[in-house]
Amino acid sequence: MSVFEAIGRRRDVRAEFSGALIDDATLERLLAAAHSAPSVGNSQPWDFIVVQDPNRLREFAIHVSGQRQKFADTLPDERARTFDPIKIDGIVESGTGIVVTYNHGRGGPHILGRHTIGETGLYSVILAISNLWLAATALGVGVGWVSFYEEDYLAELAGLPEGIRPVAYLCVGPVKQLQTTPDLERFGWRTGRPLSSAVHRERFSSTA
Amino acid sequence: MSVFEAIGRRRDVRAEFSGALIDDATLERLLAAAHSAPSVGNSQPWDFIVVQDPNRLREFAIHVSGQRQKFADTLPDERARTFDPIKIDGIVESGTGIVVTYNHGRGGPHILGRHTIGETGLYSVILAISNLWLAATALGVGVGWVSFYEEDYLAELAGLPEGIRPVAYLCVGPVKQLQTTPDLERFGWRTGRPLSSAVHRERFSSTA
Repeated sequence: MSVFEAIGRRRDVRAEFSGALIDDATLERLLAAAHSAPSVGNSQPWDFIVVQDPNRLREFAIHVSGQRQKFADTLPDERARTFDPIKIDGIVESGTGIVVTYNHGRGGPHILGRHTIGETGLYSVILAISNLWLAATALGVGVGWVSFYEEDYLAELAGLPEGIRPVAYLCVGPVKQLQTTPDLERFGWRTGRPLSSAVHRERFSSTA
Repeated sequence: MSVFEAIGRRRDVRAEFSGALIDDATLERLLAAAHSAPSVGNSQPWDFIVVQDPNRLREFAIHVSGQRQKFADTLPDERARTFDPIKIDGIVESGTGIVVTYNHGRGGPHILGRHTIGETGLYSVILAISNLWLAATALGVGVGWVSFYEEDYLAELAGLPEGIRPVAYLCVGPVKQLQTTPDLERFGWRTGRPLSSAVHRERFSSTA
């Protein structure tokens, strides 16, 4: 699949996991794609914890469900009604979670390119996630990025040592289909804005 | 170009810009690819400021050069010698800079998926950058992510209003070639680690 096709077809998958488990060879290709990402100072500050134990997945799904409720409770009526039918994770159905982490200490004290902008290491981790996600799209595998969790909880679940921080929990698995329209548009949560409103010439223009 | 090929060929470009200016149609395709990225709560918190004024590029290059020197001054001897020949930007030669920014306020107070992890908006911006970078690779255009700058300086240069934060400065332009080996490996700064050391099963393993 071409880069442009993958960019267009990529979806944040919740309800479309088929229930089949991803095979190890495909999983390895996705992880290799992630690991090929560029990183600040070539520090490769990421790790990937592959979670497939059904009990652990169920336990995490319960935590996420609680966080979903907490968010719902903060919403005004109209937003709460719109949010209600939106599925926010496929943790159990996907069968596989990948906890992606960040190690700020990897690469020692002199990280080329990080001395002015401290978050660049974290940004490298996101580039790895993006690679994995687009590679998955090309292979017909769905990825759903779940962020309804408390960091400390996920760190404990994945056995992360001190200094290693969870950045994302990705549900990964075969899908029945990929939606053509993003869920949050289909369900009326929020539509996109035109490209022209995001592009500015020479300096930021508040009217662009 | 396929997703996997683009992932493998992508380089962080410094010295390989040809000196030609990217044409507007290609630039538009890259920005459209960036704008197609998924974002937390579909908030699309990014903006893109395209900088092509030669005076502004020169001014920024001088600032970056100063930051390069500051970093060099912190290095022990062996690292300083290794760093010395490494070119860290192609700001002037690329002819085009794209300042990518983050607006935490876009989308209002109820961002679906951001209530537990505050940085997820910032992560969305990096997904947009990744799309742009891979799309550029597919079109034979080089991208070099420069982070040797002070945020306040770049915000001023790009005329960013209060509340809009610069996340990256990308040099974008046609290239003579893409290197097959990343610069930091070629120059002996830091080599990568094997994938196996980054992958863990069920829980983080310090021996993995």
